[in-house]
Amino acid sequence: MIATGGTAVTATLSPVVLPVFESASSSLYYRGLVSLQGGGGSVSLISRCSLRVKAMEGSRTVNVNGTDLAANGHTGDSGENQNLLSSIGNSTNIAWHECSVGKVEKQKLLKQKGCVIWITGLSASGKSSVACALSQILYRRGKLSYILDGDNVRHGLNRDLSFKAEDRAENIRRIGEVAKLFADAGVICIASLISPYRRDRDACRALLPDGDFIEVFMDVPLQVCEARDPKGLYKLARTGKIKGFTGIDDPYEPPLHCEIVLTHKGGIDGSPSEMAEQVVSYLEEKGYLRA
Amino acid sequence: MIATGGTAVTATLSPVVLPVFESASSSLYYRGLVSLQGGGGSVSLISRCSLRVKAMEGSRTVNVNGTDLAANGHTGDSGENQNLLSSIGNSTNIAWHECSVGKVEKQKLLKQKGCVIWITGLSASGKSSVACALSQILYRRGKLSYILDGDNVRHGLNRDLSFKAEDRAENIRRIGEVAKLFADAGVICIASLISPYRRDRDACRALLPDGDFIEVFMDVPLQVCEARDPKGLYKLARTGKIKGFTGIDDPYEPPLHCEIVLTHKGGIDGSPSEMAEQVVSYLEEKGYLRA
Repeated sequence: MIATGGTAVTATLSPVVLPVFESASSSLYYRGLVSLQGGGGSVSLISRCSLRVKAMEGSRTVNVNGTDLAANGHTGDSGENQNLLSSIGNSTNIAWHECSVGKVEKQKLLKQKGCVIWITGLSASGKSSVACALSQILYRRGKLSYILDGDNVRHGLNRDLSFKAEDRAENIRRIGEVAKLFADAGVICIASLISPYRRDRDACRALLPDGDFIEVFMDVPLQVCEARDPKGLYKLARTGKIKGFTGIDDPYEPPLHCEIVLTHKGGIDGSPSEMAEQVVSYLEEKGYLRA
Repeated sequence: MIATGGTAVTATLSPVVLPVFESASSSLYYRGLVSLQGGGGSVSLISRCSLRVKAMEGSRTVNVNGTDLAANGHTGDSGENQNLLSSIGNSTNIAWHECSVGKVEKQKLLKQKGCVIWITGLSASGKSSVACALSQILYRRGKLSYILDGDNVRHGLNRDLSFKAEDRAENIRRIGEVAKLFADAGVICIASLISPYRRDRDACRALLPDGDFIEVFMDVPLQVCEARDPKGLYKLARTGKIKGFTGIDDPYEPPLHCEIVLTHKGGIDGSPSEMAEQVVSYLEEKGYLRA
């Protein structure tokens, strides 16, 4: 229920709504379609809202506690609402637990700001090399980073996933969620994975506060990647032994508005270190290398 | 292929084998059943081995490169084998990428050792309160921790999972895998979730190097938890509105050999801070609060 001048209003989140949670604050964020009904009228809005959610088991209707549904607004409740239950996806009766050591405190400890550096590009475009060089430079500067590599995560968290379309999307979703947790811990999380589709990358971007998702595009032509082919995968794809290979028989959608483009210029590669330095400069400029 | 005095041997990992990967080293660990065949004979062993894996697409047979299959042994290969491909679960053609900033370096930076503190117990046994108190004490001592709360993770990474049996197991598996990543980043990861079954907790333990999985049992009687019932869940379970609720109509299996038991003594609770101090003492004694 939303207290709006004494009028009871019920907010319903549409099934397509994308929940975006902020564990460091006392609020939950939803970005998506929110329908408000009550007081003789109804309103729909698409925005990023700060909500306190409570739901009964099996229900998808959400009652909102709070006074502020403006974009990025914060609800004023505390204490008694700390353990409200909610229905998220297939989960019911789950509470959100607050803890006073939040992202800000962790960032002070680490003297940096948590964020996600999302490196996208074709296989063999140099993502892992740049990720590795970046983590080395950051380490030398006393900064804590962690690499989530698409392949490495498939050895553990995502070992149940194949390369079919829905599993590739789920692979990226999970890495986005884990990257968000690392950023929330104050870590500079470097996610390095092909992530060929814009919608999947954008969904990960939407999980994070504005600015904290830094998309880095490895802008290397297919023929260059294919000539490198260190794992022999392009050869396997060309001969049909691998199906749905990005760049060969599955599309790669380059970012339209990414934060950093690392370009392969005139056939001459920048070294991974040189490319990584461009990312470090960006982080420095935007204040991520201090608390 | 394993080089054993010139004899070619093929190692086959059984389908139940549990892969345990160590990103900080140049080796991959498997704990489970490994069958070795070749040289006119075959051997099966259950152990934790250090392997380099390579597999062709669609194959579940794994060729092992290395000379040492003793428990915790390390293979001696490097360089050319860095990007071998493997089949893990449903994933094929995935490589393991090494990076020189490993766990040891991150631990030096943080002046602590990465580990997982796994707090298990009934709903309302005080897991989240202890987790929170622990993270506060660690923060005051300049140590970086991160809480993975069963409920909180269901708002993000595990939002696709319900509370049916296989989804609960998958919920725990994923949290175990994410906790392992945090420990690998040098973070003291506090996982707080009911995790009622021994087999699920033990599978998470098996992901980590010996000693780095610290199981903390909230030994609080059911009647005490039920009397607290802060979320009203026991009441819902007793009236049949929630099915399969741990302690009511689904079992809780207490740990048999956990590292720390936090006991509810004679009806008087220790405060969460007092309980958390017991965990801190353990961490100190075992050297986790220094690099």
